[in-house]
Amino acid sequence: MPLIAHPQSMPFSQPLPLQSGAAIRDYALSYETYGTLNADKSNAVLICHALNASHHVAGVYEDQPKSEGWWDNMIGPGKPVDTDRFFVIGVNNLGSCFGSTGPMHINPDTGRVYGADFPVVTVEDWVDAQARLLDALGIRQLAAVMGGSLGGMQALCWSLRYPERVRHAVVVASAPNLNAENIAFNEVARRAIVTDPDFHGGHFYAQGVVPKRGLRIARMIGHITYLSDDVMNEKFGRQLREGIDLKYSTQDVEFQIESYLRYQGDKFSEYFDANTYLLITRALDYFDPARAHGGNLQQALAQTQAKFLLVSFTTDWRFAPARSREIVQALLDNKRAVSYAEIDAPHGHDAFLLDDARYLNVVRAYFARIASEGAAA
Amino acid sequence: MPLIAHPQSMPFSQPLPLQSGAAIRDYALSYETYGTLNADKSNAVLICHALNASHHVAGVYEDQPKSEGWWDNMIGPGKPVDTDRFFVIGVNNLGSCFGSTGPMHINPDTGRVYGADFPVVTVEDWVDAQARLLDALGIRQLAAVMGGSLGGMQALCWSLRYPERVRHAVVVASAPNLNAENIAFNEVARRAIVTDPDFHGGHFYAQGVVPKRGLRIARMIGHITYLSDDVMNEKFGRQLREGIDLKYSTQDVEFQIESYLRYQGDKFSEYFDANTYLLITRALDYFDPARAHGGNLQQALAQTQAKFLLVSFTTDWRFAPARSREIVQALLDNKRAVSYAEIDAPHGHDAFLLDDARYLNVVRAYFARIASEGAAA
Repeated sequence: MPLIAHPQSMPFSQPLPLQSGAAIRDYALSYETYGTLNADKSNAVLICHALNASHHVAGVYEDQPKSEGWWDNMIGPGKPVDTDRFFVIGVNNLGSCFGSTGPMHINPDTGRVYGADFPVVTVEDWVDAQARLLDALGIRQLAAVMGGSLGGMQALCWSLRYPERVRHAVVVASAPNLNAENIAFNEVARRAIVTDPDFHGGHFYAQGVVPKRGLRIARMIGHITYLSDDVMNEKFGRQLREGIDLKYSTQDVEFQIESYLRYQGDKFSEYFDANTYLLITRALDYFDPARAHGGNLQQALAQTQAKFLLVSFTTDWRFAPARSREIVQALLDNKRAVSYAEIDAPHGHDAFLLDDARYLNVVRAYFARIASEGAAA
Repeated sequence: MPLIAHPQSMPFSQPLPLQSGAAIRDYALSYETYGTLNADKSNAVLICHALNASHHVAGVYEDQPKSEGWWDNMIGPGKPVDTDRFFVIGVNNLGSCFGSTGPMHINPDTGRVYGADFPVVTVEDWVDAQARLLDALGIRQLAAVMGGSLGGMQALCWSLRYPERVRHAVVVASAPNLNAENIAFNEVARRAIVTDPDFHGGHFYAQGVVPKRGLRIARMIGHITYLSDDVMNEKFGRQLREGIDLKYSTQDVEFQIESYLRYQGDKFSEYFDANTYLLITRALDYFDPARAHGGNLQQALAQTQAKFLLVSFTTDWRFAPARSREIVQALLDNKRAVSYAEIDAPHGHDAFLLDDARYLNVVRAYFARIASEGAAA
């Protein structure tokens, strides 16, 4: 009997002040919950998502057996984050295109679709919005907040912004900020979208078009950076798509890797929103808790109160282990309790979503410890 | 008194058969020579260029003091490849947009501009065309053939295709073939160009437009892969372009790295030809001398007769040292004479064009040895 997920929506009428100085009002957050909130409301775990994900973290939708949540291998009954013990909340971030209020929704100030006028949101804004959702659900303190990649940044941000509301922060395949190369890849992807003639300055909805060319390029770039060199060579290498003879064409698919990337790009451009892509990559660029402390991460993390689990993957060149180690070191320098696992995995950044026994066991053991601590910790 | 370069053009009426099975006729190669061919014509050095370069390798043009050749720090009087000793030839490849016959020239079969109908050319085709140029210049054997990156592939190809015509091959920052990740980056760049509405299937010249959007994206991707992570962090890091306040914009430039990439993309799109970009990246993809030997590089290199210098750079992730070492190993397994230098340089793939004393000294010493050997070697 699989876990059945029930998407819900929480409306907020109170304006949410944003880091940019703007505010957003009359918005809604999509979310799902799994498991049961215990009597003292001490077993809640919040899951934060990365670029291309949503509140649908675990389980399947009724009568849709293929609709597994994006972290279904990690979260569910008897799984590393055990929904028989924890009340797990998946939430979709503001600006997303998967349910929560985003660029394709109506701007209450104008009565027209937001489009490019959707306010620029940051990791801090998302965390603030998530905190309000917890308020609405009556949850004062999280047993844990957890996320991978951009989701890990949110988990880290939670421990800084609401230190007393987080007992544990689980930060997987993440970084204390993006480096120049990461920003560079984001920028190329954004330029591809913004310069697509079908983007219309971000107001393409009214034109009945979608900047698919740009979205395809953005996704292709993304996929290259999610995979490791090793796994690409193993999976595709220089294998030709058709037989062994070269076609000698600059435009046709010749190598399997080209076919894979085109397929991923095409698929993505069918469902992902271009304005959301811009917003989410920008939130990634901006995240940098050390910035307000002159670049001193130790100082920035001094305000944390949580215990931490950090996980990184050896072949992840997008969020390399060295970046996780910066966080670990800064926490240790603050005498925080930190567990750190560097998993020797071939899959690059994608590894955080995949089945790796060592990785899943580390998380399982950590959450077993959280469960045994209870609210007393 | 700087070296003054004189561009020349050599016409060829005889059709050149290509690897694809097609042929090209009535073409011309642009080239430059520096220094003096000695009496027994034994001191010629051929320089092969990479993606964005040309026959203008060294020196400056008359009355254009800023027009230094792309490898002017390496080649010239008293420089590592000393034009007081060697007769150096720079040649522009077929399909280029810098002088030799390319997609913007007239197809003699149709009387119209080639555009996308320019035949797909390979590294082997370029080497064959270069061999004909040497024939026309009366040069039977090269003291050395030298190139970096794609130019290094041509140097390696020379040693295989015309073993008796090459005494030394100098292969810098190169590889025995592209790996899947390299092909992937090329493919994204090509898709950006081909899907630009101004590309018109490669026949944009007649429309009076240029697919600049695609060229910009292609160049931005290229620049990311030419630089190392380290040098990007050092040069740009997370530095903002204007002051210290964030603008909270998804489309404006916020970080210095974005400004740099946009500038490079804009500049490139003003002068580089889109069809040439497709052709050259495809030549990169196709090069794979081991392919005809079931992937066995040692077997492929058994036919070489030259002595070799290989150079790689530690932070080059586009053509990593490990790829150069594959060539070195395969040559050693064939008992060839090989010198190999792995230069600890922070600049990534770009290092092969930059001033690094150790690198320049290695090349200087190697060419001094070639000069001392004379034609007897």
